[in-house]
Amino acid sequence: MTETLIQRRARLMGPNVPTFYEHPVHIVRGQGVWLWDADGKRYLDCYNNVAHVGHCHPHVVEAIAQQAAILNTHTRYLHDGILDYIERLTATLGHGIAQTIMTCTGSEANDIALRMAQAVTGHTGVIATDNTYHGNTAAVSQLSTRRPPIGGYAPHVRLVPSPSTLQPIDGRAADQPRAFAAHVAAAIADLQDKGFGFSAMMLCPVFANEGLPTVTPGFLDPTIAVIRKAGGVIIADEVQPGYGRCGTHFWGHDWLGFAPDIITVGKPMANGHPVGAVLARPDVMAAFREAFGYFNTFGGNPVSAAACNAVLDVIADEGLLENATRTHAHMMDRMAALRHPMLANVRGVGQFYGVEFVTGSGAPASDFVADLVERMVARGFLLNKIGKGGNTLKIRPPMPFGVEHADLLMDALQDELTRPGVT
Amino acid sequence: MTETLIQRRARLMGPNVPTFYEHPVHIVRGQGVWLWDADGKRYLDCYNNVAHVGHCHPHVVEAIAQQAAILNTHTRYLHDGILDYIERLTATLGHGIAQTIMTCTGSEANDIALRMAQAVTGHTGVIATDNTYHGNTAAVSQLSTRRPPIGGYAPHVRLVPSPSTLQPIDGRAADQPRAFAAHVAAAIADLQDKGFGFSAMMLCPVFANEGLPTVTPGFLDPTIAVIRKAGGVIIADEVQPGYGRCGTHFWGHDWLGFAPDIITVGKPMANGHPVGAVLARPDVMAAFREAFGYFNTFGGNPVSAAACNAVLDVIADEGLLENATRTHAHMMDRMAALRHPMLANVRGVGQFYGVEFVTGSGAPASDFVADLVERMVARGFLLNKIGKGGNTLKIRPPMPFGVEHADLLMDALQDELTRPGVT
Repeated sequence: MTETLIQRRARLMGPNVPTFYEHPVHIVRGQGVWLWDADGKRYLDCYNNVAHVGHCHPHVVEAIAQQAAILNTHTRYLHDGILDYIERLTATLGHGIAQTIMTCTGSEANDIALRMAQAVTGHTGVIATDNTYHGNTAAVSQLSTRRPPIGGYAPHVRLVPSPSTLQPIDGRAADQPRAFAAHVAAAIADLQDKGFGFSAMMLCPVFANEGLPTVTPGFLDPTIAVIRKAGGVIIADEVQPGYGRCGTHFWGHDWLGFAPDIITVGKPMANGHPVGAVLARPDVMAAFREAFGYFNTFGGNPVSAAACNAVLDVIADEGLLENATRTHAHMMDRMAALRHPMLANVRGVGQFYGVEFVTGSGAPASDFVADLVERMVARGFLLNKIGKGGNTLKIRPPMPFGVEHADLLMDALQDELTRPGVT
Repeated sequence: MTETLIQRRARLMGPNVPTFYEHPVHIVRGQGVWLWDADGKRYLDCYNNVAHVGHCHPHVVEAIAQQAAILNTHTRYLHDGILDYIERLTATLGHGIAQTIMTCTGSEANDIALRMAQAVTGHTGVIATDNTYHGNTAAVSQLSTRRPPIGGYAPHVRLVPSPSTLQPIDGRAADQPRAFAAHVAAAIADLQDKGFGFSAMMLCPVFANEGLPTVTPGFLDPTIAVIRKAGGVIIADEVQPGYGRCGTHFWGHDWLGFAPDIITVGKPMANGHPVGAVLARPDVMAAFREAFGYFNTFGGNPVSAAACNAVLDVIADEGLLENATRTHAHMMDRMAALRHPMLANVRGVGQFYGVEFVTGSGAPASDFVADLVERMVARGFLLNKIGKGGNTLKIRPPMPFGVEHADLLMDALQDELTRPGVT
């Protein structure tokens, strides 16, 4: 009997290694917004944000290949690549954020950000939402509700109710910004009361893992006021919204209209090359750098810097923010025209879209969406689901995803939704 | 006035970003065991273990370039590359270690290893030596004595005296293995007494950061017995000794002759591409995988796997272990022939060498060695120092470092040591 790839994974990687889909796909080739499996079947990639400027973009591949052949060392020697990159990246940022630590993953970046906040405030209490994921280190997994940490949650963490489009916090649909802020204020008071003090709130500016709920500019204003009053640090986890994902803005926090103290980034930075970073104001950076002698062996090495610089080139050269805005408008029209009895809400921020389904009683249509994802994959469209109930289609394609790709996806989705028996 | 590279770093990266050497080198090109700076000056690389098979090795560069142009996704899709790699890597291992989690850094690997041990034992108490470094995450920096964690050391960590060639533990030169084990036993008892219980001891099999002290096979036997009796887990941090650095053995723990439960690797794995890994027995892996839903976005992606596979190819094809053994023998002869009044000890394990100096009174000759490093760099030889006193030259070149390079280095070093006024 031949060992299947799935059996071989279990033998070599152990149990519970996550895969996508009931029948995991075996992808062997990628180009732009397209992926091919081992049988030659083509998929439209409506999901992957790591291949931010498109799978195997030749400009990024060339930058990596060239620099890897010239030099790949570390930041204990001087090199222009990392400095050129930080200069370009911080030029996209306001709020005094002007300095950077390069890491290899978003998890490493968030792990540092928590310690930065601790160094600034002298406190350890941290707040996040109750349906999020900020990374996989021991420290950061304390904030990740889908992956409870080994040994249980630490006592210095508070998780506040997530914004939600259909199930507003405390049922107060009219006043979500204040309802969210009230929970943050209560969490701060509790952390102070228990002796941890308040260090930071970490959040994703589009609340991606929370289900991409409908929030509009100003949503966080009352929360920011509460955090500032308590002397806390605001960490914007820009791993998903950053680098133009929002279309109209390069950064999620600028889209939502608030000023963070620290920004963390990862996945899309180098189109799949392992890179993350922490960006902060000089006073925040100094607090960390003076308290702790951080060095990351691979972080910001010449090849990583070259890959990062190439991604910025492509974003600008190919007008990927403009493309995101154009595709967004078309997708919103197409999603609004979708018809199905269980369709409850469609929404989007730039190149990130949600299509939410509920049952007749208004409960999350989790099984329906799980099945719909499988059927779309079988038709050649890679996507997934988000949100507490897992009842929202998650559509978050590589940035070159255009109007023509949106039409392919929406035609197929409407077709699936109108097949006999699909209710 | 022109901004220097160092000023530009401070502006963009913040204060206290570590560099090597009083006058940091600005390296722009590398090939094999050679590096060149921006002025065209050539350096013999006697230090860098990340460029394990030599800087910019064409086989590794080609593997990265080819795979980056074909596909770079993640392990939620099936792919052969990571499985082929784990199969090859675990084939080098005994002790039942047969499963792997791929990460992007050694720090991420050690961060996981600590949680694995916690999942296996149900306890949190951890032991390391008192002069080591195991990484930079919040959790792992608790074990890193050169970089005290922000907020001080956590109460579940115990640091035991490091082995030392010239300053034996408790002054008991004749019985170092038992002296080391006695401190571990006392630390375990204290952790149990304080309610943390005993989870794991993490150590580098060649005690690299401790100063590469003279230890011989069997050194850890009494310690291993103590750990086993207490039900603890043994984590071998193979970031420095692994992948053939020891010459006679592929792994440091096999060189020293003990059976770890978990192995962590990083720096040399992919010749500079950001990769790390945790390797464990299936029962240990299952304990972690069943307790925690770990996923690493970049870890084990097709490009990382291709780079890793290429490094294994080169190690075998170019006989780098055999080269290490050959160069080692020659280096030991040449080091033994060095002459200087302050020279106290020469030692080495495979392609890793220490040259220790003391003052007339027997104190660490820290300033002398710091100055010697600078003078060797000025002559075109990159090396550094290790150990508590910083009085041991650290020579840890890329693996292709051969007899002819050893002669260049030793001729220059002897010449520096015999210059008038150098005493």
